[in-house]
Amino acid sequence: MSVIKAAIVGGTGYTGVELLRLLSGHSGVEVTAITSRAEAGTSVAELFPSLRGHYDLKFSAPEVDELAQCDVVFFATPHGVAQAQVPELVARGVRVIDLSADFRLQDIPAWEKWYGQQHACPELAAQAVYGLPEVNRAQIASAQLIACPGCYPTSIQLGFLPLLEAGLIEASGLIANAASGASGAGRQGKTDLLFAENNDSFRAYGASGHRHLPEIEQGLSRAAGGPVALTFVPHLLPMVRGIHATLFAKLKNPAAVESSQESLQQLFEQRYRDEPFVDVMPAGSHPQTRSVRGTNMCRLAVVRPQGRDTVVVLSVIDNLAKGASAQAIQNMNIMFGLNENQGLESPALLP
Amino acid sequence: MSVIKAAIVGGTGYTGVELLRLLSGHSGVEVTAITSRAEAGTSVAELFPSLRGHYDLKFSAPEVDELAQCDVVFFATPHGVAQAQVPELVARGVRVIDLSADFRLQDIPAWEKWYGQQHACPELAAQAVYGLPEVNRAQIASAQLIACPGCYPTSIQLGFLPLLEAGLIEASGLIANAASGASGAGRQGKTDLLFAENNDSFRAYGASGHRHLPEIEQGLSRAAGGPVALTFVPHLLPMVRGIHATLFAKLKNPAAVESSQESLQQLFEQRYRDEPFVDVMPAGSHPQTRSVRGTNMCRLAVVRPQGRDTVVVLSVIDNLAKGASAQAIQNMNIMFGLNENQGLESPALLP
Amino acid sequence: MSVIKAAIVGGTGYTGVELLRLLSGHSGVEVTAITSRAEAGTSVAELFPSLRGHYDLKFSAPEVDELAQCDVVFFATPHGVAQAQVPELVARGVRVIDLSADFRLQDIPAWEKWYGQQHACPELAAQAVYGLPEVNRAQIASAQLIACPGCYPTSIQLGFLPLLEAGLIEASGLIANAASGASGAGRQGKTDLLFAENNDSFRAYGASGHRHLPEIEQGLSRAAGGPVALTFVPHLLPMVRGIHATLFAKLKNPAAVESSQESLQQLFEQRYRDEPFVDVMPAGSHPQTRSVRGTNMCRLAVVRPQGRDTVVVLSVIDNLAKGASAQAIQNMNIMFGLNENQGLESPALLP
Amino acid sequence: MSVIKAAIVGGTGYTGVELLRLLSGHSGVEVTAITSRAEAGTSVAELFPSLRGHYDLKFSAPEVDELAQCDVVFFATPHGVAQAQVPELVARGVRVIDLSADFRLQDIPAWEKWYGQQHACPELAAQAVYGLPEVNRAQIASAQLIACPGCYPTSIQLGFLPLLEAGLIEASGLIANAASGASGAGRQGKTDLLFAENNDSFRAYGASGHRHLPEIEQGLSRAAGGPVALTFVPHLLPMVRGIHATLFAKLKNPAAVESSQESLQQLFEQRYRDEPFVDVMPAGSHPQTRSVRGTNMCRLAVVRPQGRDTVVVLSVIDNLAKGASAQAIQNMNIMFGLNENQGLESPALLP
Repeated sequence: MSVIKAAIVGGTGYTGVELLRLLSGHSGVEVTAITSRAEAGTSVAELFPSLRGHYDLKFSAPEVDELAQCDVVFFATPHGVAQAQVPELVARGVRVIDLSADFRLQDIPAWEKWYGQQHACPELAAQAVYGLPEVNRAQIASAQLIACPGCYPTSIQLGFLPLLEAGLIEASGLIANAASGASGAGRQGKTDLLFAENNDSFRAYGASGHRHLPEIEQGLSRAAGGPVALTFVPHLLPMVRGIHATLFAKLKNPAAVESSQESLQQLFEQRYRDEPFVDVMPAGSHPQTRSVRGTNMCRLAVVRPQGRDTVVVLSVIDNLAKGASAQAIQNMNIMFGLNENQGLESPALLP
Repeated sequence: MSVIKAAIVGGTGYTGVELLRLLSGHSGVEVTAITSRAEAGTSVAELFPSLRGHYDLKFSAPEVDELAQCDVVFFATPHGVAQAQVPELVARGVRVIDLSADFRLQDIPAWEKWYGQQHACPELAAQAVYGLPEVNRAQIASAQLIACPGCYPTSIQLGFLPLLEAGLIEASGLIANAASGASGAGRQGKTDLLFAENNDSFRAYGASGHRHLPEIEQGLSRAAGGPVALTFVPHLLPMVRGIHATLFAKLKNPAAVESSQESLQQLFEQRYRDEPFVDVMPAGSHPQTRSVRGTNMCRLAVVRPQGRDTVVVLSVIDNLAKGASAQAIQNMNIMFGLNENQGLESPALLP
Repeated sequence: MSVIKAAIVGGTGYTGVELLRLLSGHSGVEVTAITSRAEAGTSVAELFPSLRGHYDLKFSAPEVDELAQCDVVFFATPHGVAQAQVPELVARGVRVIDLSADFRLQDIPAWEKWYGQQHACPELAAQAVYGLPEVNRAQIASAQLIACPGCYPTSIQLGFLPLLEAGLIEASGLIANAASGASGAGRQGKTDLLFAENNDSFRAYGASGHRHLPEIEQGLSRAAGGPVALTFVPHLLPMVRGIHATLFAKLKNPAAVESSQESLQQLFEQRYRDEPFVDVMPAGSHPQTRSVRGTNMCRLAVVRPQGRDTVVVLSVIDNLAKGASAQAIQNMNIMFGLNENQGLESPALLP
Repeated sequence: MSVIKAAIVGGTGYTGVELLRLLSGHSGVEVTAITSRAEAGTSVAELFPSLRGHYDLKFSAPEVDELAQCDVVFFATPHGVAQAQVPELVARGVRVIDLSADFRLQDIPAWEKWYGQQHACPELAAQAVYGLPEVNRAQIASAQLIACPGCYPTSIQLGFLPLLEAGLIEASGLIANAASGASGAGRQGKTDLLFAENNDSFRAYGASGHRHLPEIEQGLSRAAGGPVALTFVPHLLPMVRGIHATLFAKLKNPAAVESSQESLQQLFEQRYRDEPFVDVMPAGSHPQTRSVRGTNMCRLAVVRPQGRDTVVVLSVIDNLAKGASAQAIQNMNIMFGLNENQGLESPALLP
């Protein structure tokens, strides 16, 4: 197969540089354009010295005609941008992988409420495939427009799925306590994201409501085959990369054999047996975020403390990788019939 | 009043040096002895250069006769040590504040199960007063032996108390997701506490059962006036000081006026109106651990996300201060009739 | 003596909140006003939750008439601001302690070159006293306008002074390799100060020239009694507070008895024997920045590696404390005849 | 060419796991054995969860017969170990790459003084090739025993080489101020390496003499063609990976055209023009350690501040990669006639 020509729209943020890092080792893809209105003319290597010697590219102003010559276009932009540019690309036959939130929600009024603006192309949102391969692999293969899952939603859905699909837990009282490294907030010069504001400190944010909530509930509802109610509290960690989700759910039938620790372990192992990027750790494990740093892996552990009614799932991903750019490449591999883990095989950087 | 003579047993750990730091600014107390078998003869200032110029003391081997000359003895030792030494001190009339877990549990078999050894003096455990001033201030005043609360138990109990005392939440399905700075693991040379093992990473530990669980449940049961069941998952943060507890509970009667956001806020504010070291933050706040760094303060926020059935409490303390040494001094102040906040008035170090 | 009335101009930055923290424990001073054009009307406790319960103040727009009613006004502003406001305050008899760079250089053309603007009141610069108590204590006592030293200049001057005053080193080839915590860059929302840009990374900056260079050379020249040439390379540390300066100088007469390790140690100890805030550590020590965290202390160590020609001095301070706000308070104590260490006696927060 | 069979002796430390990480992506090598007396029988994936799915290996006790069947053996052991085991392996024709200090010094008495023990095989030390490809590429190709350079020595030598080879600087007054991430101290449970002891703090260590000094001076002397004298002060950074060396040297002839900023830049660019793993950054750059994280790259910048007599070089590497395991693989590639950058092409993980 010939090399896939890819473009990245909005490449000056952390998901952009992560796409570039990962694609530099992907022999099936060539990045032919990367856009940024603000940095047009700047070389990629100047903005990101880590890429010196790896790319000769310069940022360019986004031009539909240039993008339309690519096989695939990644949008690594704030929400609202892809909506404006994707329709024409789709119309011209380009496949699009959107890392932003623009096409993640099927419920357009909900999208408009949480994101505070009118949706520019609801009809495309309906066609978009939610790019969680562990759920939608077949649809992804033939999709023209992928809505890449958010970082929290990826880690939380993968943790709850086996329990919800098996009908073992009360869907109305789910709890997700999650924490993210600071890169999740993006590369923007805000006072409350300063090093001096965040080092050696920890806090929750968005406790009364975070934009990822409807996306997570949408995915969990599909798995549960009915409505779910989730309480989701995100936190900001004094570290750069990684999401750790600690999930709590009440067993419907605590006395049943099927909800023993052993069977919970088996349930998870079977659900993800064939998944290249979900690793169910041995019983008693506590996955560390660093064990997935820079990789497309999600590591899970499940435990039922004191044999009581509550089951706990621990789920870790790298927010910029499986939570964004690496998962986008996994989607691309599926869409173009490549080996699903091409370009995604390096182990985590540890320590 | 004359100056109180205090001794510290086991002063080479983090709670020991924190006692020294705080007591150096307490005009009502003089530290006359600090013991350490391993460091006997070493000056305090040599081991802790931050205390150069503040103390002339050397570590000495623990001698009951020397300790018995003090008005109060703090035990900043691993569990098991205080049990062996406290009985004689108590018999000789010395007041003891134990920062370890030795006298925290009234249920001796439970203590023996969780700590894996026989309890040396169950009868003293029965007399010990649990040193959480927000619950036991009167008993503390007249106590001879104080069992200082653990760090997680302090943050978690203070967060749940208003809700349990008011009978607003289901006591059988409480969830405490908590995270601690690495100083909580103590000053011991273990591989998994190394800087290179913990920086830029995050993980849970003890998910299947942590020794603080029975202590927390004991306190919450008193508040609830009946049994409680808590799922408690601790995590290790890549930072030095601070505990953040995120608490989840189900409202018994979600439709009731008393469980509105406004009334929850009022409930917390009234419960802690007269407490010098519990600060209920304005609705919508997200307390940061750094806002209590080095202080005896607990900051709380309460929220009911999306007006649903689950109430969330955010609770932060400094694990070495309100979670250990500063709370010990608060107890001492109460026991000796001093101003409760003497020596504990400095604001947090921020940034 | 009655309580000193103090105002802080520009109190929303890190030196502002540090002044507030330290002054909250200073019984001889009352902060009666704190100004910020951007945050006028906001309460101090809202912007800095660590100060909840410690201050009732709100930020106000800067008004000369209000400031003129104070005994002392601290300027915690970017350079250029104090120049515009100080002349009238001085004319009305208010004593001023400027933490910015506005009055630090006697060489006005040099100031204008390094700061890129015209100096608004060169005549006041000539009257200003450079607030390094270890050099200028007597002049500080009677000064009306204090130019508080910069953070790097404080740590570097205190390290070189004994050697230069004794004429032991070549003044023409001094080297200062220094590193600062990120709070030194201020509380401003710049991309390159983000947590995600600085954690787990380290870099130099300003290697070809930093604004503190002329200030340091000015101070060292006074000590040397002649011109000096310094190569100064600052670095940005992945931590919040602290400066570590590693100083190198060539001994003029390496064979002389006076430059033995023992005599170097004695030289330093004698130079700072009576200084409350300079601590010469025992030979062989390596001062840590955390040992001075939150304090006005400078800790020094001197070593002559392998007995060769080069002498090395290690110097640590807290950039926001001895490097800014605490030193400002030390100056105030001297100016108003208070005990020099009033409000500055707490040991460092460690760990 | 058939796949190279490699063994790793002492694989439980950070250089061991880094060899495994890098070799997992090297198609020309298969790791057939990894030894650890303490962890014999434990699977690699259990000790290092980041390698789950990448290796099926278990640690085994070191057996010469097993090692002798490999084409190359890496020693990732503390000093003293390789000396005891290498002679037999060499005698049996195995090629050895020693990452420890055992064979780095040609001056055996110096080795014995700095490492405090007798050298077990001085004759092998004489045959060993110092594995700095930028100096010894030809000898490496045919070597049977490689002494891999230390981390500080790599960063410091690469920075000084162009200046010394060109004879531009005074060789008798070199200064290297360097700082390392905590992984450089190894994976050993020492109190002073704890997270709580190092986070948000910075300090020098070994200022009076560090074991890397003679190694660095040996290399610099070769480059200078005569004796050199270096003052070397290492520091411990609150981060995991990375070394930053800030180098200072006095120009012999400051007035000469050849030592202008432009010509210094050209000198460096020409010296490293053909080196795949040394990157001379544009004039005015300040290399960040994160820009080489996880890679075999050394990034350099050179500056002559204020056009004075002192030239400054900034040099960054990853201490575990170019400073240890990646450089070891670079050596292996050269020894076995592979593409020099095979397995070493991934860009740094940033952010």
